[in-house]
Amino acid sequence: MLPNFLKQRAYLTPNRIALISQGTSLTFAGLYEKAKETARKLSSCGLQAEDTAAVLLNSRAETVIILHALQQLRVRTLFLNHRLTPAEMQYQLTDSGAKWLITEKSFREKAEVLNETATVIQSEALDDLPAAGYEERAEFAFEDVCSIMYTSGTTGKPKGVLQTYGNHWWSAAGSALNLGVREDDTWLCAVPLFHISGFSILMRSVFYGMTVYLMEKFDEKETAKLLKSGRITTMSVVTNMLQRLLRELGQERLHPNFRCLLLGGGPAPRPLLEACAEKNIPVFQSYGMTETASQTVTLAPEDSLRKIGSAGKPLFPAQIRIVSDGKVCGPFEHGEIAVKGPNVTIGYLNRPDANQKSFRDGWFFTGDIGYLDDEGFLYVLDRRSDLIISGGENIYPAEIEEVLLAHPDILEAGVIGVEDEKWGQVPAAFIVTKRAVQERELQAFCETRLAKFKIPKKVYAVPALPRNASNKLVRRKLLELLPS
Amino acid sequence: MLPNFLKQRAYLTPNRIALISQGTSLTFAGLYEKAKETARKLSSCGLQAEDTAAVLLNSRAETVIILHALQQLRVRTLFLNHRLTPAEMQYQLTDSGAKWLITEKSFREKAEVLNETATVIQSEALDDLPAAGYEERAEFAFEDVCSIMYTSGTTGKPKGVLQTYGNHWWSAAGSALNLGVREDDTWLCAVPLFHISGFSILMRSVFYGMTVYLMEKFDEKETAKLLKSGRITTMSVVTNMLQRLLRELGQERLHPNFRCLLLGGGPAPRPLLEACAEKNIPVFQSYGMTETASQTVTLAPEDSLRKIGSAGKPLFPAQIRIVSDGKVCGPFEHGEIAVKGPNVTIGYLNRPDANQKSFRDGWFFTGDIGYLDDEGFLYVLDRRSDLIISGGENIYPAEIEEVLLAHPDILEAGVIGVEDEKWGQVPAAFIVTKRAVQERELQAFCETRLAKFKIPKKVYAVPALPRNASNKLVRRKLLELLPS
Repeated sequence: MLPNFLKQRAYLTPNRIALISQGTSLTFAGLYEKAKETARKLSSCGLQAEDTAAVLLNSRAETVIILHALQQLRVRTLFLNHRLTPAEMQYQLTDSGAKWLITEKSFREKAEVLNETATVIQSEALDDLPAAGYEERAEFAFEDVCSIMYTSGTTGKPKGVLQTYGNHWWSAAGSALNLGVREDDTWLCAVPLFHISGFSILMRSVFYGMTVYLMEKFDEKETAKLLKSGRITTMSVVTNMLQRLLRELGQERLHPNFRCLLLGGGPAPRPLLEACAEKNIPVFQSYGMTETASQTVTLAPEDSLRKIGSAGKPLFPAQIRIVSDGKVCGPFEHGEIAVKGPNVTIGYLNRPDANQKSFRDGWFFTGDIGYLDDEGFLYVLDRRSDLIISGGENIYPAEIEEVLLAHPDILEAGVIGVEDEKWGQVPAAFIVTKRAVQERELQAFCETRLAKFKIPKKVYAVPALPRNASNKLVRRKLLELLPS
Repeated sequence: MLPNFLKQRAYLTPNRIALISQGTSLTFAGLYEKAKETARKLSSCGLQAEDTAAVLLNSRAETVIILHALQQLRVRTLFLNHRLTPAEMQYQLTDSGAKWLITEKSFREKAEVLNETATVIQSEALDDLPAAGYEERAEFAFEDVCSIMYTSGTTGKPKGVLQTYGNHWWSAAGSALNLGVREDDTWLCAVPLFHISGFSILMRSVFYGMTVYLMEKFDEKETAKLLKSGRITTMSVVTNMLQRLLRELGQERLHPNFRCLLLGGGPAPRPLLEACAEKNIPVFQSYGMTETASQTVTLAPEDSLRKIGSAGKPLFPAQIRIVSDGKVCGPFEHGEIAVKGPNVTIGYLNRPDANQKSFRDGWFFTGDIGYLDDEGFLYVLDRRSDLIISGGENIYPAEIEEVLLAHPDILEAGVIGVEDEKWGQVPAAFIVTKRAVQERELQAFCETRLAKFKIPKKVYAVPALPRNASNKLVRRKLLELLPS
């Protein structure tokens, strides 16, 4: 139980800048006032405590205000990834029982399709709505669910990860003790708010009293300019963004005020890290997932090259261990990465099966494979369930395979990630078919069912898929079938 | 539930300096190793989880190691104020059920008296003791009691304040979000470790991975030198220390690395704050008590003169309100200060009466009188129970009165604090006697029963004490009886 987060922050440091977005800024007092105003509008629409509302919104000040308004109302927020198809979104709305969809004009087409599943509220129309009262919460309970983000897994269907207010607090507190907190910190948010990497920045802002500089879409030119200006101290990126930023920077250096580039979303190639070290860019590699409410393991820049390839050590409140055959592994032994800590999700929504599988003795089993070295640094060898990370987006082969198998002519399907210069990885599909199917035809088939980044960039017809003794697909062996 | 604090810190940043004391330094890995070694020695003495051990030790590296060893063993630590008499210490040992007293040669006389109440362990003898195993704790439970510190009150007998591991965590986390955390922070500890102001620095050190510079006894010359050197970033002081430091500094300025002087232990006089502002000394005034595990309200330097006399605003996890006649007061209305937050004690040991009186609806009623202004800044008007603050030490009149009344010739006694240039306040006694009693005789009578700083510096014989309708002593009216 802590005081109402935004209310407390607005009380403690009313005049500090909370948000800079599209050239305008908002103090914490201003943000709180606007959030309450929006909460009254949403209340007049009928939103009530414990409802779930989906948001399909771009990264703008209005969105931040809406997200805080939902917290003030104690409405759970379901974050929709913009790139999902209406069918994928519909699944999440239905599964989460979201009654509401708050969206904006630019998503009109998708929203029209979802109109039947949830009551759509246009953010542009909020101003004209009447205001209604609601009970202001003096305190936020740690165990209350704040946000829901869907993530896939081995079983195909995405699962809703429940993130509590406590999860967000602990994630922010752990990060603060690791990265430090300074009064003049400004965190550049150019990652999507619908990913935990973005939303966690908004939560930290309230706990720390820290300015967020919100960029609607990552732009390397604008980013380079900002990072040279001294106005930004911290930024979250994925590998692809860092590559583009480095290219843009050329021979130029960042301002010494800039003290942390938090790198998430999969492993970084060595040459990239070396280029950063050479330019004195303070890269903090990290390991985390939706289920840990952002980074839970982080590597300090001073260890960046000494421990190349490592994701670092846990945040203070968090623990990691490697487990193999039910036993905790010693140094350098490979096994499944298990994590523990108050930042770890309380579980998946409506998925007792997945919860039973993932949680054992208070530990969350990530499905990722890795090891700890003799100093306790974590090395991630294989992302869980053959996870494909493409430009910072997580793609689960099983989800794509399920769609492919729905095609009448496909008998078997296996998907893996293949290297891609721009995105790190892209999905490639291997299929066993009744009759010849064209790659283009299959991609078109996927288009209405899968977000664009999930559509296989290459499709290979093969006579059979590699399977193990229990007839389970061995995705890793698909790599050997790739034409060289 | 968090990972074993010191073990986790030693794992995360083994090579960072944890402690500088008497010219030597210790890394976190070194501190952890030494704490485990000492835990094994103490274990061989018979110390077990859930025991209570009193410590009567000076501020040296060995003491810090012992304090951590006790945490490793899950033994509760009772902190004894060095200045108490053996009789006062005996009361605390008995009341807390402390089986053990860990002390050192310089306290030999006192320890000899206490020998019958608890098993005395000499810290100097630890090296020669055999080692015994103990079960290492993987985690620390928030609800476990870590430390006990006695504080007095209206009823005379001191009460044991139970401070949990959670209290210490939350206090440190709240302070981190307010004062910030930097990798190169070094906190100068020249306040006693047996007060929460000192011990809380050790706890923060482990959570933040921060260096503590431990000074055995406050020395203004050494402090001024350190604060000019750039080696220290933060320091905790009480008013008297600050006055001595300012005098020592003369025209000189502190190093710009020094960023926070945390001022506790009662209100600071305006000229002192003005002198600090003029010298650019970043004073953070604060309000806190043993029951809140250190500061719970703090004033930022930028508000120091604008809000002169204010103690500031709560830390992020904490709340304050002013209550009068059972109602929450509006701005500028005077009433009792109530505090709430996860840093607030779970209660007094063995004192259901005091707990019932102090805790209502989740709020802790401090007994202090104050008000909030229209921006929510706290102003403390009267410390609880006519508290006397003398050189940072809390003195409760009731405790002294009880001793005076034990004298065969004294019929009535009333104690108040009177102004003192050096200590801020010192106690003065008003007595109604059967026959004439000499001041010196009475002071001698007190010497075996009260710590030196509690002995009345002045004793006034009066015909009667001011009492209210219900015959209760009205201490404030004693001031009027002072000879002008």
